[in-house]
Amino acid sequence: MNYGFLCRACGLRLSFQPGTSRCRCGGTLLVEYDLERARRTLTKESLKHRVTSMWRYRELLPVQSKDSIISLGEGWSPLIRLHYAERLLPLGKLWVKREEQNPTGSFKARGFSAALSIAREYGINKVAVNSNGNAASALAAYAAYAGMEAYVFVPRDCPGIIVEECVQYGAHTCLVDGFIHDAGKIIIDGQQEQGWYNVGTLKEPGRAEGKKTMGLELSEQLGWRLPDVIIYPTGGGSGVIGMWNAFQQLKQLGFIQGDLPRMVSVQEAGCQPLVDSMASGSGFKPQSGHVDSSPTGMRVPHPPDGHLILSILRESGGIAIAVSREEILQAGAAYGRQGISASPEGAAALAGLTRLIDQGWIRPNDEVVLFNTSHAMKYMPWKLAASLPVVKTYQDWLRAVK
Amino acid sequence: MNYGFLCRACGLRLSFQPGTSRCRCGGTLLVEYDLERARRTLTKESLKHRVTSMWRYRELLPVQSKDSIISLGEGWSPLIRLHYAERLLPLGKLWVKREEQNPTGSFKARGFSAALSIAREYGINKVAVNSNGNAASALAAYAAYAGMEAYVFVPRDCPGIIVEECVQYGAHTCLVDGFIHDAGKIIIDGQQEQGWYNVGTLKEPGRAEGKKTMGLELSEQLGWRLPDVIIYPTGGGSGVIGMWNAFQQLKQLGFIQGDLPRMVSVQEAGCQPLVDSMASGSGFKPQSGHVDSSPTGMRVPHPPDGHLILSILRESGGIAIAVSREEILQAGAAYGRQGISASPEGAAALAGLTRLIDQGWIRPNDEVVLFNTSHAMKYMPWKLAASLPVVKTYQDWLRAVK
Repeated sequence: MNYGFLCRACGLRLSFQPGTSRCRCGGTLLVEYDLERARRTLTKESLKHRVTSMWRYRELLPVQSKDSIISLGEGWSPLIRLHYAERLLPLGKLWVKREEQNPTGSFKARGFSAALSIAREYGINKVAVNSNGNAASALAAYAAYAGMEAYVFVPRDCPGIIVEECVQYGAHTCLVDGFIHDAGKIIIDGQQEQGWYNVGTLKEPGRAEGKKTMGLELSEQLGWRLPDVIIYPTGGGSGVIGMWNAFQQLKQLGFIQGDLPRMVSVQEAGCQPLVDSMASGSGFKPQSGHVDSSPTGMRVPHPPDGHLILSILRESGGIAIAVSREEILQAGAAYGRQGISASPEGAAALAGLTRLIDQGWIRPNDEVVLFNTSHAMKYMPWKLAASLPVVKTYQDWLRAVK
Repeated sequence: MNYGFLCRACGLRLSFQPGTSRCRCGGTLLVEYDLERARRTLTKESLKHRVTSMWRYRELLPVQSKDSIISLGEGWSPLIRLHYAERLLPLGKLWVKREEQNPTGSFKARGFSAALSIAREYGINKVAVNSNGNAASALAAYAAYAGMEAYVFVPRDCPGIIVEECVQYGAHTCLVDGFIHDAGKIIIDGQQEQGWYNVGTLKEPGRAEGKKTMGLELSEQLGWRLPDVIIYPTGGGSGVIGMWNAFQQLKQLGFIQGDLPRMVSVQEAGCQPLVDSMASGSGFKPQSGHVDSSPTGMRVPHPPDGHLILSILRESGGIAIAVSREEILQAGAAYGRQGISASPEGAAALAGLTRLIDQGWIRPNDEVVLFNTSHAMKYMPWKLAASLPVVKTYQDWLRAVK
């Protein structure tokens, strides 16, 4: 095996295994590869002849056998110039990475393609996730394609079309009277009894590794260089963690040189633990007060490893900012007028850009990449199927499914 | 200019121009290229180094200047094996071309990328389309990105989320009390007065040329060969026309050899002019009787050139079949259980496959490609914005927008 675990906090090395990504010190275990070995086959030239999915970077994904790969056509999403906005703002160069063109219409496809490929490699066939929505429907689709049984737990105010998707893909779908971490507790409480393999954020190595491919792609699509700034809507933060990891690996491989991008995390005001922790100047603190933001992927008051996200933002010279619901709505409309269908999370990134230009933090000659993580239409109002159970605890769930 | 028009009916050659695709004999004008010249740069090897959008085939698209190209990342959609269904049916090989991963979530993106690139090349900036939905939202998005003004006319029972998309992309959006051809009449009646460039099916050369890239891609993705059968949900039929044209051009270029696929058009029972005409054994007749099918892209009682579609189906040894609403629902659910989000049109193709296997028309060792043209979620029920005008004629429209 040419990969193993490395603890991002204490530096401990461990052998790779599914079902964990937490060191005994509490730090997050990231996958470390034998890059000397990877370099033999992974070259800029060899990449020109490879599949146009995220699996083109297979030396940097923790799956041994090609037969384990579960792929529905994820990754290699378009990177599109926004000429109109560039002139308007003005800005050196502005790009949007169209992650909504992934299977299931969101960037979550990447993480589950990797996570379920690992699961298949280890003979796992019963998977569960807590999610604000898009991760649930992505898991549901990949599990269906792989012939695995999926259990998804989402807050009861999850956008209805996304809930509908989960049901359509055949997942056991349950609404939770609480936030994403409450949904997560149900899985933790039930995983031993139910035999669930927990594919929640940073509960196993695949999700962050799959997201890493966004960073690899971005660099390759720009001709093996990186922009000055990346603006990313942030909830659990595996995208920030994954992309930062990608950039380190590309540097070690000699594929890129020079400064890395300033990483910007955007959250919606009302659920902004990263913004508040960044402003405090000290360590990360989950949001303890009242949560008052929309039900989107950014609404994560207790991210699994806020320390790590914060340390990446700081190391990169980046920032975390909160934008209002109104700013998100306006940015969504502005995206629409440029031909892009943006989810609230994607729109938040554009709102963040506008704010950071106003503040002078982003300069007129900067090159910026925005991530649009999902389609606008997935968030349109929709009456939830009345037949779905609404639960609060694992015990509730047991009663509901009896 | 290395391309011109060739009439598919009478063989007349004309110089290329935007805004028409009809010969004086009534036949459809297709774009003919100087393939000797194309061959100099378009090679199997050169394609390996090109953009992964439909514009990789630029020698076979009628746009002269690279600066005219309006691209939002359309084409090069994944082609995915359906292993589970293959074993179940059983079938030699079964693939789905995931056209829902295009911008605006549908295959219509291809046609408008081409059509509006041509429009830009000729200085046009006011465009109009009649559509059952997906073409309208695709036009809206591409026009927005290109800075053009868009007018879209869709039947009043058009799926609401798609109408919402049109509005979001800033198109002048109008609901029509009638079918797609009634909507088309409004544009024809108003185009001179309003200065609309009509981008309806077969009203200009771009739509069919853009769709042609589905055929080029399919062949390249299969390693420069083609399947035994292609199953395609058919309304206006520019996809069938475009793909058949693609295969002829690939043959002439020497990229492929041997038999071409049997082309299957699937329609929903209740609006099945191709099925009825095929069964009659004589020429094409538009549907004159009562139309009773769902508001999907297949509901086209009067396709602009049914003769041409019919002649292609016959030439290929293909067939047209009608499937019921119930079969479409069941096929959509079956797709969901395999991880694929299929629009009713996409599901109809799968329903058609099941039927043709039962009838013995498709044999167990056949290799089949299904086209999934759009996402399931675009068809979810949705209350139409009450503010939109509902019109019947061009005069109605004039009054409504005053």
